[in-house]
Amino acid sequence: MSKDASQVSPLAPARFPELPVIAGLKAAIGRAGFYKHERPDLLLMLAAPGTQAAGVFTTNAVGSAPTDWCKRALDAGRGSSRGLMVNAGCANAFTGADGDAACRRSLEAAAVKLGLAPNEMLAASTGVIGVVLDDSKIARALPAMELGPVDWLAAAQAIGTTDTFPKGAGAACEIGGAKVAIAGIAKGSGMIAPNMATMLAFVFTDASLPAQILERMLREETESSFNSITVDGDRSTNDCVLLFATGAAESPPIADAKDDRLAGFRAALSQVLADLAIQIVRDGEGATKLVTVSVSGAASDASAKKIARTICESPLVKTAIAGEDANWGRIVAAAGRADEPITREMLSVRFGELWAAKDGMVARDYDEAAMSAYMKRAELEISVNVGAGAGRARMYTCDLTKRYVEINGDYRS
Amino acid sequence: MSKDASQVSPLAPARFPELPVIAGLKAAIGRAGFYKHERPDLLLMLAAPGTQAAGVFTTNAVGSAPTDWCKRALDAGRGSSRGLMVNAGCANAFTGADGDAACRRSLEAAAVKLGLAPNEMLAASTGVIGVVLDDSKIARALPAMELGPVDWLAAAQAIGTTDTFPKGAGAACEIGGAKVAIAGIAKGSGMIAPNMATMLAFVFTDASLPAQILERMLREETESSFNSITVDGDRSTNDCVLLFATGAAESPPIADAKDDRLAGFRAALSQVLADLAIQIVRDGEGATKLVTVSVSGAASDASAKKIARTICESPLVKTAIAGEDANWGRIVAAAGRADEPITREMLSVRFGELWAAKDGMVARDYDEAAMSAYMKRAELEISVNVGAGAGRARMYTCDLTKRYVEINGDYRS
Repeated sequence: MSKDASQVSPLAPARFPELPVIAGLKAAIGRAGFYKHERPDLLLMLAAPGTQAAGVFTTNAVGSAPTDWCKRALDAGRGSSRGLMVNAGCANAFTGADGDAACRRSLEAAAVKLGLAPNEMLAASTGVIGVVLDDSKIARALPAMELGPVDWLAAAQAIGTTDTFPKGAGAACEIGGAKVAIAGIAKGSGMIAPNMATMLAFVFTDASLPAQILERMLREETESSFNSITVDGDRSTNDCVLLFATGAAESPPIADAKDDRLAGFRAALSQVLADLAIQIVRDGEGATKLVTVSVSGAASDASAKKIARTICESPLVKTAIAGEDANWGRIVAAAGRADEPITREMLSVRFGELWAAKDGMVARDYDEAAMSAYMKRAELEISVNVGAGAGRARMYTCDLTKRYVEINGDYRS
Repeated sequence: MSKDASQVSPLAPARFPELPVIAGLKAAIGRAGFYKHERPDLLLMLAAPGTQAAGVFTTNAVGSAPTDWCKRALDAGRGSSRGLMVNAGCANAFTGADGDAACRRSLEAAAVKLGLAPNEMLAASTGVIGVVLDDSKIARALPAMELGPVDWLAAAQAIGTTDTFPKGAGAACEIGGAKVAIAGIAKGSGMIAPNMATMLAFVFTDASLPAQILERMLREETESSFNSITVDGDRSTNDCVLLFATGAAESPPIADAKDDRLAGFRAALSQVLADLAIQIVRDGEGATKLVTVSVSGAASDASAKKIARTICESPLVKTAIAGEDANWGRIVAAAGRADEPITREMLSVRFGELWAAKDGMVARDYDEAAMSAYMKRAELEISVNVGAGAGRARMYTCDLTKRYVEINGDYRS
């Protein structure tokens, strides 16, 4: 799927999952030619009339033409967008009025293809920043694209860039006795950091839910999934997560996000989002370790998250993990520079079940041999208690390896 | 001076500078054995009676026994400290009461050697975190140490850890017609980030200045020097800059930091601190490029500094520079995620005199060939205007290379 596809992440899942059919949804894959080599790089999706949609978008102030478009379209159409076009290879970010115009023209062409009005379309792009989208490539690709049942694997492959494996997740649940399904795909492996951490993710359900409930649940569940991962702390201009509900499962109408009948759906959605988010970390550029950092004893949950993020984004912590070195001193130092309340004398650090530091000092029963053995695992759990309160948070990250430097040192050429 | 000494940074100055003699100052170098291989790792300095001292210290909440000691000693003695002991190889950070006691014992022994009271001593340590200082090594090393004229090169070498070259800077100036000199040494090449960004720096003058003036000038001048550099964003537990004034030059007494007669001294001090700070960046672990990032057009100077820091600490920006790729899109993206006001439509980026982006788009006269040639330089200047006001700031950083990962992936073993 890219020049790195030959080297699949060692943290990749064994296989792409079986995803449920989402009633009321079709897709088409195309080749617009945004890459020098031949590959699918264009995805169209069409959801049934009546579909409701919601999105959360990057907080990067630079943004991009497609994220700007989506925000306007969702606002103007009150969440009634039901067409989606995603291209890989060109982010169309920082491209000014020319980029906006190209985005609009490409969506007008796609809308004709799908039989929609342009304002029913949403768009997402990733790739190089600063290059205006060549919408003529999209216009030329559209006629050959055939809408049909969704091939989730092919869809996930079409939206990838430096991804080394396609990312998908699904779940089934009930709303008020009606069976509903959720399926999602995501892409991303670099320029990944919270708020939004996502690069791109598209999640679909056949549940019948209004846009404002979708948006609220998406926003809340994004906090503990896409906003709790970080690869390199670099928050992209184009990140977005879109959630579409086709209503084709004919689940009972729900008017309140707190309706008890939504509990199962919310849990399933949460699981799908977290699954996709962690897959993005698993594909972190050059990653060889998946690291879960749990911070407890913080002054608040927000404080815990800031401390966890500081640890997760510390180059010294990440390189130590790459070297399979249980360098807990760097974890302690990172916790100390988060500018959040900590009680130094109570600080503790655990790797899995092994104590590294306790009560502000190296643990009395610190076991170097056991620790070294633990560090060889591909998946590590680091728990830090900062002794300042009851706040807690969990974040996911990966190690920082020479391969990351290699991939990112020569991206454009 | 360390396992990496064989690979001197390509950004190292041609030679260690000639530093002026500071009247009223002596030094001794020792070997305490904190390293497996034989090397000087202990420095003692003794300043004349009446010396005034000031310090600025890490804001890392974990801190360390020696920085805690210094803060207490400077407060209690009202800046009259005149003995200094520095060891390399053990940070004595996150070592609890045991670490505090070891620090105290080592300083008591050093005070006896120097003929001082313990509370006239200051201390600084760098090295591995979490290991209690073995003060018996210091006690054994002290008898063989001979105080004499300061050998600045030897002193700079004794305090280094992963440094690949010794760092020194000096200047001469006048205060009210009296000639005074300034000389300083520094160490540091990783775990370098603002507030304090320093690792360690010790600056001496023979001017006659009270501690409160020293402290105020040091704090102000640190902002544009040590607090304006970043290698990896990791702020250490042990960072400190100490400034001693022996008074031996018999410059006229000054009671007010705003006294006009201090203008020359302040400029000289500023130059010495900036020189030392930039040398630390030049020795950034694995660095092959020295990068100056100047941000203008920000809402305030503080906002400009936050944007500059976000650019300087972006792994994607740093790896692109390592790859000699003028990836201005990543600079724009980093500016956009600093959570500071920017006017996207006015954003501009320049490399040296070459425009990359202007008015929110790629520059019309963008010249890829000229840009590629520019990126091959060892020293790069990146200027970013964010079009939101009159605030400006300048920061210094280096690139992120495979060598950084190598050095930090296997530090403890």
